[in-house]
Amino acid sequence: MTLLTASVSNRQGQRQAQPYGHTFAAWRNGCPDPWHAYTHHSFVEGLRTGALPRSAYLHYLIQDYVFLVHFSRAWSLGVVKAETQLEMKTCARTVDALVNHEMALHIGTCAAEGIDEATLFNASEEFENLAYTRYVTDAGLQGDFLDLMAALAPCCFGYGEIGTRLAASAASDTPYNDWINTYAGEDYQSVMVEIGRMMDDAVARRLGDDPQNVPRWSRLQHRFTTATRLEVGFWDMGMRAS
Amino acid sequence: MTLLTASVSNRQGQRQAQPYGHTFAAWRNGCPDPWHAYTHHSFVEGLRTGALPRSAYLHYLIQDYVFLVHFSRAWSLGVVKAETQLEMKTCARTVDALVNHEMALHIGTCAAEGIDEATLFNASEEFENLAYTRYVTDAGLQGDFLDLMAALAPCCFGYGEIGTRLAASAASDTPYNDWINTYAGEDYQSVMVEIGRMMDDAVARRLGDDPQNVPRWSRLQHRFTTATRLEVGFWDMGMRAS
Amino acid sequence: MTLLTASVSNRQGQRQAQPYGHTFAAWRNGCPDPWHAYTHHSFVEGLRTGALPRSAYLHYLIQDYVFLVHFSRAWSLGVVKAETQLEMKTCARTVDALVNHEMALHIGTCAAEGIDEATLFNASEEFENLAYTRYVTDAGLQGDFLDLMAALAPCCFGYGEIGTRLAASAASDTPYNDWINTYAGEDYQSVMVEIGRMMDDAVARRLGDDPQNVPRWSRLQHRFTTATRLEVGFWDMGMRAS
Amino acid sequence: MTLLTASVSNRQGQRQAQPYGHTFAAWRNGCPDPWHAYTHHSFVEGLRTGALPRSAYLHYLIQDYVFLVHFSRAWSLGVVKAETQLEMKTCARTVDALVNHEMALHIGTCAAEGIDEATLFNASEEFENLAYTRYVTDAGLQGDFLDLMAALAPCCFGYGEIGTRLAASAASDTPYNDWINTYAGEDYQSVMVEIGRMMDDAVARRLGDDPQNVPRWSRLQHRFTTATRLEVGFWDMGMRAS
Repeated sequence: MTLLTASVSNRQGQRQAQPYGHTFAAWRNGCPDPWHAYTHHSFVEGLRTGALPRSAYLHYLIQDYVFLVHFSRAWSLGVVKAETQLEMKTCARTVDALVNHEMALHIGTCAAEGIDEATLFNASEEFENLAYTRYVTDAGLQGDFLDLMAALAPCCFGYGEIGTRLAASAASDTPYNDWINTYAGEDYQSVMVEIGRMMDDAVARRLGDDPQNVPRWSRLQHRFTTATRLEVGFWDMGMRAS
Repeated sequence: MTLLTASVSNRQGQRQAQPYGHTFAAWRNGCPDPWHAYTHHSFVEGLRTGALPRSAYLHYLIQDYVFLVHFSRAWSLGVVKAETQLEMKTCARTVDALVNHEMALHIGTCAAEGIDEATLFNASEEFENLAYTRYVTDAGLQGDFLDLMAALAPCCFGYGEIGTRLAASAASDTPYNDWINTYAGEDYQSVMVEIGRMMDDAVARRLGDDPQNVPRWSRLQHRFTTATRLEVGFWDMGMRAS
Repeated sequence: MTLLTASVSNRQGQRQAQPYGHTFAAWRNGCPDPWHAYTHHSFVEGLRTGALPRSAYLHYLIQDYVFLVHFSRAWSLGVVKAETQLEMKTCARTVDALVNHEMALHIGTCAAEGIDEATLFNASEEFENLAYTRYVTDAGLQGDFLDLMAALAPCCFGYGEIGTRLAASAASDTPYNDWINTYAGEDYQSVMVEIGRMMDDAVARRLGDDPQNVPRWSRLQHRFTTATRLEVGFWDMGMRAS
Repeated sequence: MTLLTASVSNRQGQRQAQPYGHTFAAWRNGCPDPWHAYTHHSFVEGLRTGALPRSAYLHYLIQDYVFLVHFSRAWSLGVVKAETQLEMKTCARTVDALVNHEMALHIGTCAAEGIDEATLFNASEEFENLAYTRYVTDAGLQGDFLDLMAALAPCCFGYGEIGTRLAASAASDTPYNDWINTYAGEDYQSVMVEIGRMMDDAVARRLGDDPQNVPRWSRLQHRFTTATRLEVGFWDMGMRAS
């Protein structure tokens, strides 16, 4: 497994493993405070310790289902904007993973609480949700494939990081182990590794070997940072229901 | 002037004047509570009485400039989606009015406060602002010309209604007369009358004489209602700076 | 299997089976001459009898690969424009079928002729190809989900009809049996049946039970007819290389 | 006038004037054969000498009206994709110039031949027309502002070059002086100079001072070259009616 290899090389004292690629690492390093606020939010800590109120979790889960509907639309826009076979196939596979698999956690958990999928699909969107997803689709309408990827990256890789960290540190009795295992699991992680590689390739073939010195890099960083701040807003929204 | 004619016929006891057309009237009547919350918001009352803090007004004005940048993008998407000469010309004229004229109020007022246009253009967007504008552009990406018009309508016609009402009732010494006169003025009002007619025509040529009985009407109403709720959020955002 | 059921009911003297749904049947009946020119083109007859020159077939196959790249982009735009779970899932599944399966015929046949996939992906597009695919993606940009579906329908269902007809009537020794079996086969046919049902549902939920009496139907018919004419151009283009 | 200044400096033996900017000059130099085939097409020679059959001219003019409808849609997409005030204002002004002014030549000439504007707007599009315009709008959907500009450039600047050359060399009795003067005239030329400057600025702020060494330049060149080839196809289509 790719992640295992990456962590081995890490133990050997080489540079910090970047399981999701260099592009993501550069973007994350470009906004350390928002990134920390997002990945160490009190909502996340509540998942880890188990102290998160069930009402907050359910409110979040319903909104996250609606989020995934529009996030799938955004990844589909990736196919529309792709310029290589690799980009096209990776985006198409991601849409399939989102529409036919990731949503299963939401559907299953909500079904156990008596909420069916049609209710989820038609749930009223909170403004924080709407702001985030429409910002991402508009990034695709306004910019090119890289603009869209920069706006999609924080959700994908942030959940990957959170999942990995929580799997290693969560309270054994947290009721949120299903959530943690979904994002820490090999299925999710291996898709993220693939997406990270594809983004590295997409950046290199458009901006070359030193993309951070091409002026438009700052615009991409701005998109990544904005989407990260919108993730913070999304957790805040989840907490409101607690 | 069209509006004058409309208000005369009103005095003669005929049905209530619909200066901006039947489509808008139907949509507004479809969400009376959000519409009232928007058009009679405490921010609006503050403009009317003059009690609105200057800091709130300036915060709003800067955000509204950024709003107009993206609102112009959305009206331009109207040209992309237009199917008739009338639709194309009305949208093109509206983009020109927004980019080259309406923004002048913002630029002038802000310049007097020492804020230049480049600062306005690059101002950091509040989430409520981002939510609203990107919802509108995404409506154009997801739907057709009518979906986009339903999302554009609340801002256009709501400001028209507010301007007209405040021009007739504002405190004589409110410092916000320039704002009121911009939207109550014949320039703005006559553009709104044109847009209203174009929307009526656009609905009729797609959905026929009884559009409210075509199933997709509910979707258009939902878009109008959502954009109206996002207007309420925009005023709330303005008040935060007070 | 759905198609079997449909043809049984047909033998019992009931109305002609519409395996791909009522919407498609109405559109096809709305342009009988272009539809016949497309589905009975001399290129198609050449596939059936085996008289089609190999050079024409290969030229077509390379162009059709490039066509499928952009056709996949258009179906992905369907996910972007979808408004129901069914629409979203059907479009996502179709993208997956196109990107990961239908293209396999092209890749395999071309590989046997010494043409690799990267060559296919980057082949120079003929104007007829470019005209067709970009017309379809622009239909999605300009209109709504139905506009896009009307532009996508002729290729999907036309190949289904051609495949079924040729499977029943082709010369036993035609070298084009792989092509015929791809489109006559249950895999392709069952996807078409699903797409046809989804389109019927999409029309009903937007335009009601009598969609042909809603004014915008004429626009949808125009899109279907235009795409059908562009299919004729595509076969013509294939013949040029013979 | 800018163009005059440019040609004076040219006479003084300095580098060839680039009235429409360095970006356009680089793109044009990147496809000399297609560019010559386009700007010295037999249709153009027919305008210059006056030998072009009237039927070919009228056929072209009707198709060119429909072309301008979709070209205006594409320039409007430029406003949607703009990232600076300059880009937004230049695109908005260009849409206005196209919709409210350039089309006037077509409307006036066609009216004199008994063809009204509604007929023009709804004229059936030739495939070459459809291929060209939809390629341009799709460039905007797939890529970013630069992708769209590269696809828009050949028409804008090519007509500018042709107009200037023909104004200096046309037969005094060619019946096509109105056409020539429209594109050679100061109105058209000064808009082109502005657009050329804006494109130079747009490239510099995204790709820096040496844009041709950024990998994505080759994609932009490919878009410019493709649109130039589609211009050749458009003249061919005009000649078909002769």
